[in-house]
Amino acid sequence: MSKTIAVLGLGNFGTALANHLARKGYEVLGWCKRPEMADSINRLNTNPDYLNSVQLSANLKATTDFSATLSADIVLLSFPSSALSEIVPRLKLRPDSIMVSAIKGLDRETLLTPLQYFRMHHPECGRIAALSGPSFARDIARQRPSGVVSASDDEAVAREVADLFSNEHMRVYSSGDTIGVEIGGVVKNVIALAAGVIDGMDLGDSARAGLITRGLAEMMRLAQAMGAQAMTLSGLSGLGDLIMTSTSELSRNRTVGLRLGRGEHLDHIVKTLGSVAEGVKTTALVVELAERYKVEMPITHHVRDLLEGRHSATEMVRSLLARPLKREF
Amino acid sequence: MSKTIAVLGLGNFGTALANHLARKGYEVLGWCKRPEMADSINRLNTNPDYLNSVQLSANLKATTDFSATLSADIVLLSFPSSALSEIVPRLKLRPDSIMVSAIKGLDRETLLTPLQYFRMHHPECGRIAALSGPSFARDIARQRPSGVVSASDDEAVAREVADLFSNEHMRVYSSGDTIGVEIGGVVKNVIALAAGVIDGMDLGDSARAGLITRGLAEMMRLAQAMGAQAMTLSGLSGLGDLIMTSTSELSRNRTVGLRLGRGEHLDHIVKTLGSVAEGVKTTALVVELAERYKVEMPITHHVRDLLEGRHSATEMVRSLLARPLKREF
Repeated sequence: MSKTIAVLGLGNFGTALANHLARKGYEVLGWCKRPEMADSINRLNTNPDYLNSVQLSANLKATTDFSATLSADIVLLSFPSSALSEIVPRLKLRPDSIMVSAIKGLDRETLLTPLQYFRMHHPECGRIAALSGPSFARDIARQRPSGVVSASDDEAVAREVADLFSNEHMRVYSSGDTIGVEIGGVVKNVIALAAGVIDGMDLGDSARAGLITRGLAEMMRLAQAMGAQAMTLSGLSGLGDLIMTSTSELSRNRTVGLRLGRGEHLDHIVKTLGSVAEGVKTTALVVELAERYKVEMPITHHVRDLLEGRHSATEMVRSLLARPLKREF
Repeated sequence: MSKTIAVLGLGNFGTALANHLARKGYEVLGWCKRPEMADSINRLNTNPDYLNSVQLSANLKATTDFSATLSADIVLLSFPSSALSEIVPRLKLRPDSIMVSAIKGLDRETLLTPLQYFRMHHPECGRIAALSGPSFARDIARQRPSGVVSASDDEAVAREVADLFSNEHMRVYSSGDTIGVEIGGVVKNVIALAAGVIDGMDLGDSARAGLITRGLAEMMRLAQAMGAQAMTLSGLSGLGDLIMTSTSELSRNRTVGLRLGRGEHLDHIVKTLGSVAEGVKTTALVVELAERYKVEMPITHHVRDLLEGRHSATEMVRSLLARPLKREF
């Protein structure tokens, strides 16, 4: 019998992943809060709010009944990180189910990653994985090529999840480094904000490439202090996602930085953006995490100060460039 | 007394670096082959063929007399790698001079990097360094921020070169890993060609980011087999330059790939490009180097086959995506 899959959260990314799995032939049940959204998906095979030009697979159904999702073989989390504390405690899954997190952020109270947070609430459930890597919802929906990583402490689970998502469009590599994969997905949004600032100030592609590279070094330092392997951050879920988020016109986090670099105010940007840019909320949490693990993260600190209005984009760049020089590593 | 500097080769990059040093107050003597170019630089402070909208510093003079450059304190190489065998044997420098290579390529006969090739011809001259990193000529000329690496086996030389180039616009880090720094500058042009193909075929930013990431892994494998440290390739001279060259509209190597991806023929692209794209010549040499060191470099092999007309861009992408999946590292 084919596996049943539940997808919690039908934003851009959740809708794209749910539809990807439904196209592969799985019965997918998506969960959302708005009855109109569930109704449109069930009757018209379109999500009115996200990827609305995409005709969704008939194998994808939607519900607003949270409890209906808990009996699935695979439960995929794709809601914003700000909802972790609301949803994770209610995730009473079957012991043989697999929980897959596609969330790129931290719980704001505990600073835990989604997998760490889930483990804290459900220590008995060991079959959990993180899915991450460069994969825009729009690219997945259009069946363009992408490469992502499935990470789990349990190698068999990592491979099972990789097989679940893999097809000729999406290449899924497996990894045992869950913290490395999760931290890459968190910090890349912060660095993408900074890369956007560079572009918004028209400082050139040399400066942007330099900033992304120094941003990767920050990301590596934090992840290693938390127990990750440096190589993981050089891979798809770290560097790959960082490059995509920092250079693409489609990236929301980069767009926030771009508009800050042009002198717009954050409040106005957030109001007019239309959807969540995880980096805006995550940056201050990453600063806290860096302090907890005693890791130097100058770009992240400067982005936090910019977001909180403590300095302008010009001051941010001047101050980053004025840091003392030393050996590269 | 201030140091004298000779710059061999006044293309885009050579002109930008020569002018950068001249603006810092050094007396810089540029060498070029065409008397009209030298004359224009000396009389009008402009290079008619490269960066011609830039008013050059009056401290930059030019000559077509090769021997006049050999007595300089610092000799900077910035000619195309195809001229290594013609020029390097004639570089009889003073024993206390410093030779700095800004060349990103390989000697086509020996497959040696510029520093390796120089050492072979002048084993008595130990004060040599490579300068590399994300720094478009146009960005340097506009005094936009950039970060690069000065690498030498001799730490004092690396630092001396770093101090020579550093100012408030250009941050120069020092490194002891010459082979790592040089190989990054070579392989990035090959991967940028492949990234251009992805863009030319409109495969999306997810695919491009994935390709760049897998390209970095290839670059790392080759460099490590040649004795480099992996971290160097994650730095400015490896990853930084790779990101810039693979994502910028200004990159010639990416442009060649972009046009190949759209179905243009290589001969036509090279004829109409106006300046050298190092990657076109370097790719086959990197394949040879990979075979010599028994390193797997699938993207590089596929780019070579595309450049040599053995398969189309579509076949190249299909074949890269069909490779067997395994753990990421």
